[in-house]
This record gives sequence, structure tokens and C-alpha cells, in this order.
Amino acid sequence: MMTSDLHSFFYPRTVALIGATDKPTKPGRAILENLSTFTGRVYPVNPRYQELFGRPCYSSVREIPDTIDLAIIALPARFVEKEMDALGEKGVHRLILISAGFSEAGEEGVAMQRRISEAARRYGIRVIGPNALGVFNSNNGLDSFFVSRERVSRPEAGRLSIISQSGAIAVILMEALARDGIGIAKVINYGNRLDVDDADALDYFAQDPETGAVAVYIESVANGQKFLRAARDFASKKPLVLWKAGKHVTGAVAVASHTATLAGNYGLYRAAIRQSGAAEVSGFDHMIDAAKAVALMDYPCIGERLLIVTNGGGMAVAAADQAGYEGFSMPQAPAPLHEKLRHSFPSFYVTTNPIDITGSGRNEDYYTALKEALPYYDAAVVILLMGTTTVTDAVTGMVADACHEAKKPVVCCMLQGLGYTRDAMTLLLKRGIPVYPSPERAVRALATLKKAMCKKIRE
Amino acid sequence: MMTSDLHSFFYPRTVALIGATDKPTKPGRAILENLSTFTGRVYPVNPRYQELFGRPCYSSVREIPDTIDLAIIALPARFVEKEMDALGEKGVHRLILISAGFSEAGEEGVAMQRRISEAARRYGIRVIGPNALGVFNSNNGLDSFFVSRERVSRPEAGRLSIISQSGAIAVILMEALARDGIGIAKVINYGNRLDVDDADALDYFAQDPETGAVAVYIESVANGQKFLRAARDFASKKPLVLWKAGKHVTGAVAVASHTATLAGNYGLYRAAIRQSGAAEVSGFDHMIDAAKAVALMDYPCIGERLLIVTNGGGMAVAAADQAGYEGFSMPQAPAPLHEKLRHSFPSFYVTTNPIDITGSGRNEDYYTALKEALPYYDAAVVILLMGTTTVTDAVTGMVADACHEAKKPVVCCMLQGLGYTRDAMTLLLKRGIPVYPSPERAVRALATLKKAMCKKIRE
Repeated sequence: MMTSDLHSFFYPRTVALIGATDKPTKPGRAILENLSTFTGRVYPVNPRYQELFGRPCYSSVREIPDTIDLAIIALPARFVEKEMDALGEKGVHRLILISAGFSEAGEEGVAMQRRISEAARRYGIRVIGPNALGVFNSNNGLDSFFVSRERVSRPEAGRLSIISQSGAIAVILMEALARDGIGIAKVINYGNRLDVDDADALDYFAQDPETGAVAVYIESVANGQKFLRAARDFASKKPLVLWKAGKHVTGAVAVASHTATLAGNYGLYRAAIRQSGAAEVSGFDHMIDAAKAVALMDYPCIGERLLIVTNGGGMAVAAADQAGYEGFSMPQAPAPLHEKLRHSFPSFYVTTNPIDITGSGRNEDYYTALKEALPYYDAAVVILLMGTTTVTDAVTGMVADACHEAKKPVVCCMLQGLGYTRDAMTLLLKRGIPVYPSPERAVRALATLKKAMCKKIRE
Repeated sequence: MMTSDLHSFFYPRTVALIGATDKPTKPGRAILENLSTFTGRVYPVNPRYQELFGRPCYSSVREIPDTIDLAIIALPARFVEKEMDALGEKGVHRLILISAGFSEAGEEGVAMQRRISEAARRYGIRVIGPNALGVFNSNNGLDSFFVSRERVSRPEAGRLSIISQSGAIAVILMEALARDGIGIAKVINYGNRLDVDDADALDYFAQDPETGAVAVYIESVANGQKFLRAARDFASKKPLVLWKAGKHVTGAVAVASHTATLAGNYGLYRAAIRQSGAAEVSGFDHMIDAAKAVALMDYPCIGERLLIVTNGGGMAVAAADQAGYEGFSMPQAPAPLHEKLRHSFPSFYVTTNPIDITGSGRNEDYYTALKEALPYYDAAVVILLMGTTTVTDAVTGMVADACHEAKKPVVCCMLQGLGYTRDAMTLLLKRGIPVYPSPERAVRALATLKKAMCKKIRE
């Protein structure tokens, strides 16, 4: 498919919502509410209503006195087929099919999906879905997700886009990033991928100027060759992080019942992912962590010399262990740096690597350590324990300043939960520094960023 | 040492705090404040004050008109030696030495520590420290940690005790558990272990009636043989989870500068840990997760047949992958169960294992799934996505009821952050069900609980 075909899904001027309703638990209600942020024109369709939330409601898409760029169908599966004819007559060429109960739901569903597919081809309608949440575009407020904003907050505009075979994972990633104030460009969940698939989405985001990086969740791909080509192409342009689920046999069984697709041989997937230049993530936390890193940071290929700065020794040991496992080296401070730090710091601070300013460490000690040491290293992990009385939230500005002055990638580890730490974390995130809740996750995220940034084709 | 020796550290009737002060950034200030919860008598010692926060302050421990069961010294290292004589004359037999700057801080410190050690032996004083936070006992409010409660909240009374070579890790574990409303019995951080060490602490907790399980963080042990014997003995009585840090060479270098000890060969540690019957955890998150599990749940040895119940398919795939890696099996529903579920649920729910009640799943569907299926399985992971409109926080009571009725161990996965989810999480924790923020962590915690509960000696 041409990537311009996908463009009209994200940038329609007009949207018809078939199955719009005011019934609180129905998808058509949540979508109608969520479309309130859409900058284009919205037309609810439902023969039972004259009006919905102040908008005129149409008995059929045929009655709408406007051209329709995009239709969203949120009806039970059995009512979808006859809507296809209406869309064809109306000349609608883009459809997001929310409805479940097709190929994922047994023989009858498979047959229905085949008939929908034929109708779509006949009328020249491109389809996202069925059994899908559809699309979210932070740029124009388009939002076909049937998840209320009371329950799941939406992120602001940002550079990361998300492609997910699972609706739940798409929603959770959005929520996790929104919670940290990290923006998102676009999200797509294509469900049973009757037409638009994983590779199409990658191709579109590769040339979308608002997308700076992509995080992908897949259980299977529509077409291995096509996906590999798209991933390779994407990763040569922008950072790509990818989670393949259904790796173990127990997971593959779960995939079969979830998306009714074949999880495939994980060994082959792993080799292909490596070949494509994408950075593979191992699971849920790793996905969120890597997504945060590529959403916030854009550095050329990062070297392997890692610096750790801490005010808690045990946490630095944990980070150092992970650094070794991730392939970082942790060279000791060269003589001039060591001298300088010894001179600046009390004698009980540890001035090797990790630099440990101990529980007595003050805000300005973090700045000194980073400013003096960063030039000798490629990247740093800063562990900030806010439990001591000598550190205040002003430390966040000092860490951010030192990091930006040195132009080196820095990630932080702070423990979440406490109101005090939460506020400090928000300050760091606002300065573009990702914050992770454990030392190992901070190091792993940095390693994954490194992989995604160093887009060498690996064998 | 006799375990009764350690008892007096946790249950003194009287405590003298040498180095008590009102200066806000000094350890002696934080400890004095934290001792306000102690149910025994507290005597501040500092020649500069007549009175501190309404308590009379003594110029020397010699002046206190009471016998002193426990002294806490929070003075710079160079002042400690002469206090030893005062303690000896006063007949004090237990000392928590907070002060840093001894064997961890170079040659001079090593020499000072040796002299303190000789004095302690001469006067018959047992010592925790130096370079230590000391002890926390939720039962009598004894708290020698120089970390303010504004910054780090203290957990309520509970069954888990903590042994940590790192002060920071001890504090962070306390905070993490307190945040989830999970209680703690006792905590000990012994620092440079001049006298009381890791094995002594294990021996004491093995016979402490308030301790039902222990989580241990070590970078090294004082004596390998002694530790292995203590761990073996402990694990034959109560669940023991253990994190050995300084595994990779990069971590071992960090250990050398942190605790000035040798991290040792990790292969040997791993074999010894396995032999002891302790459940090893891999790092920070895993430690918190396993600590939560053993703190909340006490089951006999758990079998390997795992059930997963979810309202989001992708999350169940992630959990199923992890289940495979952790050695769980995921048998499908036997025919009668399958029939019953098919009959109770709409046709689009997935009634194999994982049971997927989809985004349409309601509170009572969780109850039905668990009530009907749990008898066929050994344990369950329940994934609760609170983003859908059909689930409310009343689901937590239904999940807890079904789990307690079946008397099977159940852990939950809920995403944290949202106020709504946070409240629901608290309700589950109150019912004794541990909640984890990712599917993989939920499965891994259950697997670690299983290892800690099935205390077979492994080779």
C-alpha cells in the first residue's frame, strides 16, 4: 500500500461514527466523547437518535450532507456487513472497524471477515481492524480508542509513535507515558489486520515528519518478508524498539487464543529483528523503559564507557552488575579526573567509578561529579536517593545542566512513590532526562537506547 | 554468638544516644527524632546541651542515672575511641556504631576500627557497625536509622524482616513496603560488621517469633561457612529470599569501593545459595517483588500448574511467556471446566488458559473464572486492567474472595499510577494479595515464592 493511504486515516477532515450512542458502557459512547478533541468535523450515525451531545445524529452515513474521509464502525459484528454497502454508496474510502467477533472468534467470524474484506475491495475501502482500537493522533485530536479519558489519560504531542497488535498494550503504553508527561505523536492498533498491517504502519511512520521514533508490540506479523523490509528501512532512518511476545511455548499458546495467529519460531524472529537494526526489548517494563528513552533522547551512536554517580553504594553495585551484563565497560577515572575529584570532595566520598558521594552528598556534588567526569565517558547513570537530608529537589536542575552542558546521554534512577521524589522526578523528565525506578532498569534502558541509536545492521 | 546477644539490640529497655543534637543535617538529630516512637527510655548524650527536645541531655554516658542496655554512637569517627572507655566504665554491653570512616575509608580507618574492636572485646561490648544504620524494630518503635520520616516512611508491624549490607537498600525496601501498606518485623544494617554479621542476624531471625520470613541483601559475607550454615538452617524453617550483588566483574569493582570487601566468585555464591534452600533474586525490582510475596503469603509448597485470568490479551501473552521461562506449566482447562465456563460466559470470551474475559469483562466474571478454575490449578496470576468501563474497584473484593475460598496463592498485575488503579491496588493488598506493576514481575514473584516455600535442599 502507498503510505499516503495511511495518511488519510490519521488526517481526515471529516469522520462519521457509525454506532454512536449515549449508553455509558458502549464503545460508541466512549469514542464519541473522545472525538470531542478532534479538530475536524464529526458526524454521529445511529437511527435511534436525532441528536447526540448537541451534535445532529444521522440515521445512515448516506444522509450526511458532507463528504466523509473516514468512517469508524462501533457496532456488533453482525451489523457490519450491511454498513459496507452504505459506505460504498457514500464513497467513503477509509474505515476503522472497531467491532470484535471476526477471525479471532471462530469459523463464523472468519467467514464474516472474508465477506467484509471482499466488500472493502469491491468499494475501494482501506480498512484498519476489525477487533481494533484504531488510531490516536495527538496532532489533531483524532482518537478512535473506546477507552474513556477518565480511566486512561492521553499523552500530549511528542515524537514517539506506537504500533501495537494488542489494544491493551497500546493503551497501557499511552497511559504510562502520559503519567510521566512524555508526549506521543501517533498510535495505531490494527487488530485482525484485514488490510492495514504492521509493515504498512512502519512504512507510514518512517516518512511521517512528526514521528521521531517508534515502539512496536507484535505477537505475529502479517507477512514476514514485508515486515522485515519495513523494519530494516525504518531502523535505518529512526530508532525502533520492538517487543515480540509469544516467545516461549506457553506464550505461543496464549497468542493463538488472543489474536488467533501463529506466534511462530522465536529464534527466527530474534534473528530477523537483530538483522533489521531494531532494538529488541524483553517484555513489558523493558518496553516502557525503552519507549521513554527513545521518546526523550536523540543522540548519535553512544559509546560503551559508562559512568555511574550515586549517593547510595548498594544501588551503584546493582547498576554496575547490570552494566556488565549489558556490555558497557566502566573504566576508572583517569589520573587528572581522580585528582580533581579528590580535591573537590570530602575524603570519604568514593572518587573511582562508580562515584559515590554517599548519604552526605549534596546537590552541588552531583553537579561537580558530572561536570568533571562526563567528558571522560560516553554516557552516565545517575542514582538519586532523595531520602537523605542533604539532597533537595534543586538537584534535578543541576543534574540536567551538567548533562546538557556535556552533551552526553544521562538517565536517572529514582525510587517512585513518595510525593517528594515524585515531584523531583517530574522536574527531571521536564528537562528531557528519563527516570527509572530501579538501577538495573536505568542501565538497561540506556543500553537499549544505544542499540536503537547505533543502527548498524547486525547479523 | 548466642542469638540472645542480638535480642538485646532489638529489645533494650534503655538507650543512650551519644552525639544527640538539634542540628538539622546531623545523623544524631534524625536518630533522636526517630527514637520518639521507642517504647523504652531514651537518654541523649552531648556535653553541649542541657536539654534536647524536652529531654534532659547528659554530658557523658557516665552521668546517666540509669543502667544502659544499648548505646548508639553518632559521632565523627575520630571521637569514637574515647567513648569506648566511657561505655566500658558504665557497663554498657551493646553498641550500635553509626559513624563512618573506618575500614571502608582507607588505612587510617582500618587501624581505628581495629582499636575499637579491641576495646569492645576488652569491655565485653557487642557491636553493630561501624558505618551502619543499625536496627529498626516495628514492635517497640526502636529506630536507629538516621533517615528522617518525612523523607522515608516506616512500615507498620508485619512478618518480614530485612538483613542488608547496604544501608540504602535497607531504607529503600522499608519505604517500598510501607508505600504498599505491607508490614515489617525488624531490619538490620550491620555496615562494616566489626562484630555482628550476616549469619548472626539470620540465626537471630530464625528463632524470632515475630519474623515469619527474611529478605537478605549481601555484597559479600563475613564467613562463607558460617553464612551457609545459617542460611540452610533458616531456610529449613522459614522462607528466605536473597539478593547477592556484585555478580559481574563491573559490580565486583563497585563492591570493593562500596563496602571495601571482596564480592567473591559469583558462581560459588550461586551454588551455595541454591544449596541452602534460599530463593535467589536477580536484582532490585525482583527483591522488592519477592519480599512483598513472602511478606503477604504463607502457603505450603506450591505446584507448577499456573492459571492466568485477564481482561487484556496482550498482557496475558507476556505473563504466559514468563510462566514458561519460570518453569510453570499452563495446562488447558479440563472438559468439565471448559463446558462450565462456555456456559457462564459470552461466546467471545476465551475459556482456555489464559482465560481472557476481554475488555468487556465485568467484576463478577473474574469471580466466576477464579471460582470455577482455581480448583484445577496450583496458583494463579490475575491481570486487572482498570481502564475499561465494565470493571470497578469492587472487583478487588471478588478476586480476593475467590482466591481465599480456593486457598490457592494468587498474585495480581495492575498498572500503577492512575489514582483509580492505585485505590484498587490498596484494596487488594489489604486483603493480602500482592500486586505487581507488570505481568512478568507478577509471574516471577510467584515463582520466587514457590522456590522459597518449597524448601527442598537443591544441589
